[in-house]
Amino acid sequence: MEHYDVIIIGTGAAGLSAGVYAGRYNLKTLIIGKEFGGETARAGVIENWPGIISIDGYDLMKNMKEHAKHVGAEIMDGTVERIEKKDNCFDVIVKGKTYHATNVVLALGAERRRLGLPNEKEFTGNGVHFCITCDGPLYTGKTIAVVGGGDASVKGINLAAQYAEKIYLLVRGDTMRAEPINVERMKQLGDKVEILYQTSVQEIATKDGKFDTIILSREHNGKTELDVDGLFIEAGAVPNTTIAQSLALTTDKAGYLEVNNMMQTNVPGVTAAGDIVNHFGHFKQDITSSAMGAVAATSAYEYYKEHKSLGGCSHGK
Amino acid sequence: MEHYDVIIIGTGAAGLSAGVYAGRYNLKTLIIGKEFGGETARAGVIENWPGIISIDGYDLMKNMKEHAKHVGAEIMDGTVERIEKKDNCFDVIVKGKTYHATNVVLALGAERRRLGLPNEKEFTGNGVHFCITCDGPLYTGKTIAVVGGGDASVKGINLAAQYAEKIYLLVRGDTMRAEPINVERMKQLGDKVEILYQTSVQEIATKDGKFDTIILSREHNGKTELDVDGLFIEAGAVPNTTIAQSLALTTDKAGYLEVNNMMQTNVPGVTAAGDIVNHFGHFKQDITSSAMGAVAATSAYEYYKEHKSLGGCSHGK
Repeated sequence: MEHYDVIIIGTGAAGLSAGVYAGRYNLKTLIIGKEFGGETARAGVIENWPGIISIDGYDLMKNMKEHAKHVGAEIMDGTVERIEKKDNCFDVIVKGKTYHATNVVLALGAERRRLGLPNEKEFTGNGVHFCITCDGPLYTGKTIAVVGGGDASVKGINLAAQYAEKIYLLVRGDTMRAEPINVERMKQLGDKVEILYQTSVQEIATKDGKFDTIILSREHNGKTELDVDGLFIEAGAVPNTTIAQSLALTTDKAGYLEVNNMMQTNVPGVTAAGDIVNHFGHFKQDITSSAMGAVAATSAYEYYKEHKSLGGCSHGK
Repeated sequence: MEHYDVIIIGTGAAGLSAGVYAGRYNLKTLIIGKEFGGETARAGVIENWPGIISIDGYDLMKNMKEHAKHVGAEIMDGTVERIEKKDNCFDVIVKGKTYHATNVVLALGAERRRLGLPNEKEFTGNGVHFCITCDGPLYTGKTIAVVGGGDASVKGINLAAQYAEKIYLLVRGDTMRAEPINVERMKQLGDKVEILYQTSVQEIATKDGKFDTIILSREHNGKTELDVDGLFIEAGAVPNTTIAQSLALTTDKAGYLEVNNMMQTNVPGVTAAGDIVNHFGHFKQDITSSAMGAVAATSAYEYYKEHKSLGGCSHGK
């Protein structure tokens, strides 16, 4: 049974940055992730990582991964099934195999929020999508609807406009939350993009059991049916806390893990960083995730020193 | 009299990152700094900026500066004399000239802490130094003493060892706070570096009115005089809050500006980021400063929108 000083779960900006710092602290470090690069790797072009005018999110994550490996962190592909507190340490179970750790850093990010429509799941990947920068090119020459007034929608539209013929942006409220610089770029796309405010998706209409089009909550040009080939949902996220349930971590109302400024949860030895916490409110960026990862690794290192001087894990003793 | 949506004071990692974000928010942005790149530009090689295995601090800051300019931020060399709240906005005075701003981001960093020895100031630059990575090369083939058990000392020694013939590291307590990876590298330097624990500098001995050597608080090899050509003090820092005094900002016991998680001070329109705040405790890094800068710019943008809808500044009305 292998023991690590710290196991980091998640290979996005928070997890990889934690890996860079943990490696530099000379901690025996394992990073486990199921989707390399997290949200960032699938975000398309990143223009707000300080010091780099423009980079593909995938490349930014690749650079961080190489950095983490360079300082000695091991990186493993895999889905963590569960985490348990045991023998004054932690058991992390991946494909039935157990890995021991003094510290656990939870950097699991968040899952895209669904609209809750009856056949939304059924059509996911076939008419319904949750990542416009990933799946936008599938709709070359077609008409799509995008749900959500945040940055993910607007940035996605600016990219998808290269492919789609017509894009409807459906915003539930009266305003958009996206960065003005991105909204401005979107406006330069002209008639190609039409914004429908105070509008949501009521249902997905089918034809021969397949995605046909969408029905709106209010009329547009005299009818509630909007003729689109695909629906992109960019409606925020739900933090991925399920696998840590047995640790009885405290969460806030929205389900994010509660941490103090040093990214420590209520359980000693467990820190958290990135989109799984709400430290900077709705402001969730690569730069903030990376900073939180670095802080979490630092707290892990402090705990490691204290834990070691108290005798370490009790298994095998 | 020029008006800016945000004036950022400080051109280190926090200030420049704030500039990148403010520019992307389409805010009319001015960054004012007296020492380009802050501590980072003088830190020598940086190996913990996630995604870059090794870079000179100066280059990292240059990249951020170019990024900030690319998104429209103006950058000006200059020392801010004072900041005053006026006409529901802020006056920032530089060389007698006044710049107006809706928001102020304080990213002024911190000043190196002195030991408080009588002739410490007099010999600064001539025997006494506060930046080993900057001034180390001046002592090629000579003997130096370095005060402080933190990372700045140890990283500095690892660099200065290329030049100096002999280095004494004076640590007040029993242990070092430096990163293990750096301590390990220092140990590989062998006899060249000698660590004296529980030792501080009692006085600076002079000869013909010039720096001669130092007197220790306890004997080493039978005498308190330690024969060195130069003294490097790496004893932490004091936050640079003086110019903001008239704003009556709340500070903590150590003098750092108090901010909430969104980097807002107690004065609406004033945010702070980087080494001038203590958000992540003693953990002060480029990655955390940059994240705080991004957050501060975001809060400035939120305030700008609110302020504008309430009628903006009252001057000239």
